[in-house]
Amino acid sequence: MSLFVASNRGPLSFRFQGDTLESVRGGGGLASGILGALRGREACWVSSATSDADTVAVGKGLWTLPGIDLHPVAISSEVYDSAYNRISNETLWFLFHGIFDAAYLPVFDGNFSRHLEAYYHYNDAFAREIADKASSGDTVMVNDYHLLLVPKMLKELRADLQVTFFLHTPFPYPNEFLTLPGAFARAILESLHLADLVGFHAEKWLANFQSCLKHSGIKQHPNCVVAPLPTDADALRVNSRTVTVANEQQEIVGQFGTRQLIVRVDRMELSKNIVRGFLAVDELITQHPDLKEQFIHLALCYPSRESLASYRRYAKEVVELAARINTAHGTSGWNPIELQSKDNYSRSLAALRLADTILINPVRDGLNLVAQEGVLLNERTANIVLSSEAGIAEHIGDLVDVVNPFDVSQTASTLYSSLTKGDKNALSHKRLLSAITQTTPSQWLDTVTGNGN
Amino acid sequence: MSLFVASNRGPLSFRFQGDTLESVRGGGGLASGILGALRGREACWVSSATSDADTVAVGKGLWTLPGIDLHPVAISSEVYDSAYNRISNETLWFLFHGIFDAAYLPVFDGNFSRHLEAYYHYNDAFAREIADKASSGDTVMVNDYHLLLVPKMLKELRADLQVTFFLHTPFPYPNEFLTLPGAFARAILESLHLADLVGFHAEKWLANFQSCLKHSGIKQHPNCVVAPLPTDADALRVNSRTVTVANEQQEIVGQFGTRQLIVRVDRMELSKNIVRGFLAVDELITQHPDLKEQFIHLALCYPSRESLASYRRYAKEVVELAARINTAHGTSGWNPIELQSKDNYSRSLAALRLADTILINPVRDGLNLVAQEGVLLNERTANIVLSSEAGIAEHIGDLVDVVNPFDVSQTASTLYSSLTKGDKNALSHKRLLSAITQTTPSQWLDTVTGNGN
Repeated sequence: MSLFVASNRGPLSFRFQGDTLESVRGGGGLASGILGALRGREACWVSSATSDADTVAVGKGLWTLPGIDLHPVAISSEVYDSAYNRISNETLWFLFHGIFDAAYLPVFDGNFSRHLEAYYHYNDAFAREIADKASSGDTVMVNDYHLLLVPKMLKELRADLQVTFFLHTPFPYPNEFLTLPGAFARAILESLHLADLVGFHAEKWLANFQSCLKHSGIKQHPNCVVAPLPTDADALRVNSRTVTVANEQQEIVGQFGTRQLIVRVDRMELSKNIVRGFLAVDELITQHPDLKEQFIHLALCYPSRESLASYRRYAKEVVELAARINTAHGTSGWNPIELQSKDNYSRSLAALRLADTILINPVRDGLNLVAQEGVLLNERTANIVLSSEAGIAEHIGDLVDVVNPFDVSQTASTLYSSLTKGDKNALSHKRLLSAITQTTPSQWLDTVTGNGN
Repeated sequence: MSLFVASNRGPLSFRFQGDTLESVRGGGGLASGILGALRGREACWVSSATSDADTVAVGKGLWTLPGIDLHPVAISSEVYDSAYNRISNETLWFLFHGIFDAAYLPVFDGNFSRHLEAYYHYNDAFAREIADKASSGDTVMVNDYHLLLVPKMLKELRADLQVTFFLHTPFPYPNEFLTLPGAFARAILESLHLADLVGFHAEKWLANFQSCLKHSGIKQHPNCVVAPLPTDADALRVNSRTVTVANEQQEIVGQFGTRQLIVRVDRMELSKNIVRGFLAVDELITQHPDLKEQFIHLALCYPSRESLASYRRYAKEVVELAARINTAHGTSGWNPIELQSKDNYSRSLAALRLADTILINPVRDGLNLVAQEGVLLNERTANIVLSSEAGIAEHIGDLVDVVNPFDVSQTASTLYSSLTKGDKNALSHKRLLSAITQTTPSQWLDTVTGNGN
């Protein structure tokens, strides 16, 4: 029996570097997370090949990775733009994270219908690829909001397959979900309802899914499981013990000296709540001017979905706000906010190692891997200031400082305690570590594919 | 025993017209609705006196109305700005109607705390005024989101009073409500929980309230009632049978001839969904160019809360969108959208009388009085196209065309059916009329003050 994994992006993609093809591995958090879970197993991975570079690479037989059988699904750039940018990222992502500006968006009009058709087409292409390649009784794990319709399409083609759907984002609250056009909302529920197992990172996303099923009158619920994806602790530690990371660490220390570090590592993304994080730092200094020059808020916010206007607007607001706060509170030689927007994985690891406080305050988040990575990497038993709306808060909320992500004043006062409370709690850090390493990625994969205990 | 009514604005306010004081009666829909309910009763009405004109009028003894004992609560303009504009309208209104752009707003920071203090102060001033004036065992009916904290404050001062709280807006879904800072959220629930009766326009707002109570661990629930405020049908008919309304009616007919009229009457307000209404008209013509010149969308959208930047931005978008659509589809002598932004009550009545289709598509609405007024006034057994998210949809949804307010395509196709289905259904109009006139405003008042059957 084989295991099929299906996700929008797989563990491999290509880009042209001048005239030569360069492979890009482990792009998304999801792909690298699942890759860790697959270590030492045989699996087939079905993902999209969308760029010209991908197509050339597939043609040249370069679409391979040792130990994993990769299946590219060729998707035209028009279909991909509609399915990935318009439906998945501009509609479902916003809906699932509760970040629509509802007076204006979403707008389900004729354009939306055309994009939605492409989303169906895209899901259908995945279902056909899997149906074509899988052997009788194989297990298929379909991942995330890009592929919500695959379970039903696949079951209709191949009733013999064991299909898991795992959602890595929040599942929306019923009042949000019901803003979707009726036929699409129903199609999503009917599709997930046909999966043999549906998995979520947190109880509350599962509860939302069940409320939506109930509301829609679907009586027979699928088997569901709550299983937060654990970070691959071993791999992360190996990655963090490189010369590059050590150099980054030295550089950070050289730049900021002995000042306390409040660190955040995020994509530049609307649900991450970077703006309110900065406003909390602003309020922190306004309330406690004696903290001037005592700390640095090191905000590593790397580019994300820059093709979307809403993301560009958000990034602009983040950059401008940091500048405003630095102008208002900075002194010669000290700025409270150090915003670094270049994607630098080694620097992120270094910063998480050195942090005194790690700020993770998303408006809403399916799980949040930074919370786990921070705990695993940190060398200073950092305080974690964590949004109640991150899925991970359900699992480690009693061991960290939980804040309402909309409550800037509460976030500021929590940061204040964190900066001033002196001795950090090594015991609670130990408990956190053990909470986070309870499960291995491989055990997680067994659980979400129905092979767990 | 007396009945006390408390609301932010009462049935009376004043403005300077040059040097003379002019009284403005029945400004808000709430005040005129309750005024109708009070007809023939003795009551005391407690409301805010906030403008300079109000203050002068109170000083001169002009703050009177026949048959009702008016009690002004003097509120400084600073407190009023904070309590009314910042907390009530910019925070609670947006929260309760689900129209926050959550990546950016709300922001609960130090400024919010200062405004919130004023909101407490404002509520306290109402509670003290009532406590001071009420006789033993009097009944008090506290209205709307401006006065959420009054029930508890009042009960603490005067446990002998019978206190009803009636909410004229939606009550937010728990996931929305919990975005409030914890102490404020708790204060609201604890206050309403101490009322003897809590009333809503629709079951779903009551259900939200009860979910929030449950979530907060408040076990003993207050008595609750769902009672949609009926329009004062007799008064409305009298108001609509004036020469002014007849003239407006003639003018509309003169201007638009025999073309079918799709009418909307709304404040220029973010929750009213005017933008998506226009987009639906755009899609209607794009899909059915044969409808060009066959109809007019008469949109009466009168000014509202123009001191708020978000409202000015929305109004600008509405105006620009209408212009874009008219440019795209208009012909010489015909524009699809006739947007009229001057507040003209007689014209609104005339338009509702003449409408062939009445479009009421709010993102979310506590009840929606236009739906009732349209049914009561209309002379052409108009089709009502009604948002599922208006509270009134719960009561008349099976007699009208219900649409998902986010679904522009569905709204467009429903408008298309409405324009083309020929004979209108007089029977369903009759049923609508009877549904809407089932209760009189006076009976409603008895119900919501606990004197009903």
